[in-house]
Amino acid sequence: MKISIIGRGNVGSHLHKAFTEAGMDTVLCDSREMKDLRESAIYIICVKDDVIGEVAEKLSVKLCKMSCGNNDIAEKALVVHTAGTKPMSLLDGKFQNYGVLYPMQTFSKEKELEYREIPIFLEANNEKGMAVLKELAEGAFENISVLTSAERKVLHIAAVFTSNFTNHMLTLADEQLQTIGLNYKVMLPLLKEVTDKLLHLPPQKAQTGPAIRKDLSVVNEHISLIEDPLTREIYKLVSESIAAGEN
Amino acid sequence: MKISIIGRGNVGSHLHKAFTEAGMDTVLCDSREMKDLRESAIYIICVKDDVIGEVAEKLSVKLCKMSCGNNDIAEKALVVHTAGTKPMSLLDGKFQNYGVLYPMQTFSKEKELEYREIPIFLEANNEKGMAVLKELAEGAFENISVLTSAERKVLHIAAVFTSNFTNHMLTLADEQLQTIGLNYKVMLPLLKEVTDKLLHLPPQKAQTGPAIRKDLSVVNEHISLIEDPLTREIYKLVSESIAAGEN
Repeated sequence: MKISIIGRGNVGSHLHKAFTEAGMDTVLCDSREMKDLRESAIYIICVKDDVIGEVAEKLSVKLCKMSCGNNDIAEKALVVHTAGTKPMSLLDGKFQNYGVLYPMQTFSKEKELEYREIPIFLEANNEKGMAVLKELAEGAFENISVLTSAERKVLHIAAVFTSNFTNHMLTLADEQLQTIGLNYKVMLPLLKEVTDKLLHLPPQKAQTGPAIRKDLSVVNEHISLIEDPLTREIYKLVSESIAAGEN
Repeated sequence: MKISIIGRGNVGSHLHKAFTEAGMDTVLCDSREMKDLRESAIYIICVKDDVIGEVAEKLSVKLCKMSCGNNDIAEKALVVHTAGTKPMSLLDGKFQNYGVLYPMQTFSKEKELEYREIPIFLEANNEKGMAVLKELAEGAFENISVLTSAERKVLHIAAVFTSNFTNHMLTLADEQLQTIGLNYKVMLPLLKEVTDKLLHLPPQKAQTGPAIRKDLSVVNEHISLIEDPLTREIYKLVSESIAAGEN
C-alpha cells in the first residue's frame, strides 16, 4: 500500500517512521509545495489543527492535476487528517473518500517511541475508506478503535484528565513541597507505584488515601493547611468526588 | 547496629527485608507479645496509626523489664514510629530518645520494591537520636530528608495530590471513556509518557493541553459535554488553576 504523508512536523515524522519500520512504502512531503507527492492509496495530512482545511484544499487541487483530466487518482484517493480534536467534516466536500487517523500520543521529535503500542482511533465517511484505513493501521499498530467525531471529543476529555490534569496534580504537589524545601522529584517513586498499579487494577479499585477512607479529620486538616484558595477548593472537590465513588 | 522491628504487617515486613538485605542485624517481632524483642540500638514501631500509642506504652514497660532494675536499656534505646501522618509527640513521655522514620511508599506484601529508592523522612527529639537514625537510614536507603512533624503534614498533602488525586483523574477519565465503550487502559501509554516526562522536566514546564494554551473554546466545549456536575466543576477549577500558573 502506497502512503503519502503531508507535513514534516512531529506527527508526520513519527508516522513516516512507524509505517516505514512496518515495511510500508511511505513518502514524507512538505505541506507547502507537496513536491514529493505521488499517487498513493492514502494521503495523511499531518499539519497544525488550524491549517488542515487550507492544506486539504491545496491537496485536492494537486490530486486533480495529477489525474490530468481523467479523475481517477482523485476519485480513488483516501485522505485523512490526524487531529484528535477536529471533526472528520473538515474534509467534507473536498474528497470523495476521507476520514481520520488519530494517534493518541504526545509526540516530540527527539523521543523514541514504541509505535505499536500507541492507541489509534479511526473514522471514515464510507465502508471502503474504513477498510483501507484499517488495513493501513493494522500493518503498524496493535491498539486500534473506530470512533465517530463526537466520540473522539469524549476521548479528548478523558485524555485531558489523564495527561494534563495528572501533570497539574504534580504542580500542586510541588507548590506544597516548596514550602518545606523539597520538590516534586521526591514524589516520583510514589507516582511510579500509582501508574504501575493501574496495569493490574482499575483506578476505582486502586484508590487509597484519606478521602476514600472518609477520614474527615485528615481531609479537613489538609484543607485548613492549604493557603491558595483555588488549590484548597480543588482539594475539597476532588476529595468529595473520591468519597462519592465509594457509595 | 541491632534493630528490632515491632509489627509484622506490610511496613514491618518490608523494612525488615530492606535492613536485612543491607546487611543489618534485624529481628521482626509481633506487636502483641513482642516475644522476639531483644536489646537493640533502635526499636521501630510499625503498627496501624491508631494503636501506635498503645504499642509504645507496652514497649516502654517491656524495655523497663529488660533493664532489670538498672535502667540502661530503656535509657539508651531509640524508639521510632513509621507513620507519615502522625506526630513524633505520640512517643512523648514514654522514652528518652524517640523519633520518626517514615518511608513514603505504598507497601503491599506481594510486591517487590526497589528499597534504596524509597524516600525516607526522619525526625528525632535530640541530636544523638538523629545521629543514630541517620546512620541506620543511610545503611539501607539513598533518598533521606529530615522533616519536622509539621512539615510532614505538608508532605502528606503533596502525597495526596501525587498519588490519590492522580489515581482519581484516571477514574474520571474512565467514566468518560465508558460512555463511548472504552476504558482507562487505552490511556495507559499516554499516562506513561506524562510520568516519563517528569523525570526530565518539572511539571510546570511539562504542562500541555487546552487550559495552558488558554484555548477557551475547547475548555468550554468540554465543560458543556461533561454530565456529572461534580466532575464538571473539577474540570473547570483544574483548568483555571493550570491557566493561573501561566501568568
